[in-house]
Amino acid sequence: MTFPVVGMVGGGQLARMTHEAGIPLGITFRLLSDTPQDSAARVVNDVVVGDYRDLATLRAFAKGCDVITFDHEHVPTEHLRALEADGIPVRPGPDALVHAQDKGVMRARLTELGVDCPRHRIVTDPADVARFATEVGGFPVVLKTVRGGYDGKGVWLVRSEAETGDAFRAGVPVLGEERVDFRRELAANVVRSPHGQAVAYPVVESRQVDGVCDTVIAPAPDLAPRLSAHAQEMALRIAAELGVVGHLAVELFETRDGRVLVNELAMRPHNSGHWTQDGAVTSQFANHLRAVLDLPLGDPRPRAPWTVMSNVLGGEYPEMYPAYLHCMARDPALKIHMYGKDVRPGRKVGHVNTFGDDLADVTERARHAADYLRGLIDE
Amino acid sequence: MTFPVVGMVGGGQLARMTHEAGIPLGITFRLLSDTPQDSAARVVNDVVVGDYRDLATLRAFAKGCDVITFDHEHVPTEHLRALEADGIPVRPGPDALVHAQDKGVMRARLTELGVDCPRHRIVTDPADVARFATEVGGFPVVLKTVRGGYDGKGVWLVRSEAETGDAFRAGVPVLGEERVDFRRELAANVVRSPHGQAVAYPVVESRQVDGVCDTVIAPAPDLAPRLSAHAQEMALRIAAELGVVGHLAVELFETRDGRVLVNELAMRPHNSGHWTQDGAVTSQFANHLRAVLDLPLGDPRPRAPWTVMSNVLGGEYPEMYPAYLHCMARDPALKIHMYGKDVRPGRKVGHVNTFGDDLADVTERARHAADYLRGLIDE
Repeated sequence: MTFPVVGMVGGGQLARMTHEAGIPLGITFRLLSDTPQDSAARVVNDVVVGDYRDLATLRAFAKGCDVITFDHEHVPTEHLRALEADGIPVRPGPDALVHAQDKGVMRARLTELGVDCPRHRIVTDPADVARFATEVGGFPVVLKTVRGGYDGKGVWLVRSEAETGDAFRAGVPVLGEERVDFRRELAANVVRSPHGQAVAYPVVESRQVDGVCDTVIAPAPDLAPRLSAHAQEMALRIAAELGVVGHLAVELFETRDGRVLVNELAMRPHNSGHWTQDGAVTSQFANHLRAVLDLPLGDPRPRAPWTVMSNVLGGEYPEMYPAYLHCMARDPALKIHMYGKDVRPGRKVGHVNTFGDDLADVTERARHAADYLRGLIDE
Repeated sequence: MTFPVVGMVGGGQLARMTHEAGIPLGITFRLLSDTPQDSAARVVNDVVVGDYRDLATLRAFAKGCDVITFDHEHVPTEHLRALEADGIPVRPGPDALVHAQDKGVMRARLTELGVDCPRHRIVTDPADVARFATEVGGFPVVLKTVRGGYDGKGVWLVRSEAETGDAFRAGVPVLGEERVDFRRELAANVVRSPHGQAVAYPVVESRQVDGVCDTVIAPAPDLAPRLSAHAQEMALRIAAELGVVGHLAVELFETRDGRVLVNELAMRPHNSGHWTQDGAVTSQFANHLRAVLDLPLGDPRPRAPWTVMSNVLGGEYPEMYPAYLHCMARDPALKIHMYGKDVRPGRKVGHVNTFGDDLADVTERARHAADYLRGLIDE
């Protein structure tokens, strides 16, 4: 049986969960991981340990793969082009992926497409930030390095010209954005295949704490049907226009005046889609694999009225097993997803999913388990 | 984070799917596999290739494992006792497992417990089979080798003394059983942990073709609540009395006169429980792992009114990928589980699960996909 070989670059939890989703698909999953201790490298059979920044390593890894895809956006664009020139399908391809790698390119392209974004422009130095602030109604404004940021890193909320120093220190171009007066954050997640089939998951609410995703509620409670449809259509349109293949997460601000603005794009399975593992007919991980293989996509519909995901961050106590046992005993329907990582304070080491008919109950159960596992509560 | 190491003996699809279920649990899954090409060995990171019949191999494998469990029942009892003497928890333990290994021991013990079984006794030669037939109302009767049978192998329906030759040829003791006039076959699946917690899945209907499981319907349609409760209670009682740890499948005959009789026992994840992957809050594989680790068990309740599993057998065409693609396109909600095995006619190479509100629809979808993948139909 000649089922295909998917090579995934990056050994984090997204690759770990993509491997899990690939087992029933019967495919061969090959991993390029920085170390044998990475989250995915602990569970995948076919692991190459090496540096994705090295083209020779990438080329050797790609040999024998039917398609290459990614756990993160950090592979240099020129390497992706070299793989394509070698005849290896790269999905998403470099022309799409650059919009998830470079926030300047992303903003320029979305603006060209008429997609609503926060007001923005590249800022060149602290004085230019002050001018930009004036243009958008004054401080505070948001500064982002155009490349290399994630989970709140590479992003600064600055209240004055004097606070802008850190953003320019990296030597990477800096994007200025207005600070959006948002009601909440949403995510519109879609999956698109090379032949243009696409599916849209329900729009979710994403709650961040200190710039890190904390809880996702599917579907977003009390979201106006008009906004929900608009967000899904926008995400599908972005996927098509940018030529995205695989999972696309469109992180959104819902403004207090009833609009949705694009915050970020991610072209891979995404934290805002982890709820789909237990809450949708087809998970984002399975659909990402189906998309990059150009297989027909799976049903994205929810399986329960409400599904809630809460991230489990490392707490002060490195030994999480007793808390894990307690959570299983307290809530037999709790779905725990551990990443096999060593615990460090603040590090994402897992997540929990809960589902059911009663949003308050489902939310409380996810919240309790995540807090208990972190050691924030002890009952 | 010192999460435990589970060692599973046997590299078949049950181990493959147990590994899949172990990934979110954050445990380390170690496999003892006959070859590197076995179904599970293709996807598990930590694989030892070796012969489970060799005690030195088993001992080396068990070193560093927190518990040993099984994908099949073929490990010799004396080896299991040796591992236990080494201080390695073996779950299920040899005293329980012997009831799934030796049908003679199983029948004797269940009879002692007052559990309803087909009439049976050990038969010593063809003339003794004829006497046994007279005792139970005449031919046909069923002959089974007490050890080594599975999927219809080691089982004969004999219509006369002259047909009994094959059963005695293996040199293994032979059990005679009355041929039960059954309405249908059921399975009562339960999971039990060392501290005595147990959960019962809904009783399912299991349809066999040529002695091989073909389709499982969860829950069993039109099963009298009295029989359903009785079957679950019986399975829980057998698990407790025999000291089973892990998943126990109790295969049953529902007779035309409204009784349930025990057909077979299996002490591992079982084909009649594959529907739980997509149809229950906690799958049999996850609960088997939780049980052998003495973790609190997960909720066994169904997630849909109906879930149907159909096995995918190999057909005449070794290349199944185009059919697989077709099935995904036809039914986006179909859940396909491939085992990564080479296709051979009649070999179990995967299964499909479907779920929903309408039993006829759910059954047709599973049936269609299994038949299409096998090549029995081409539309």
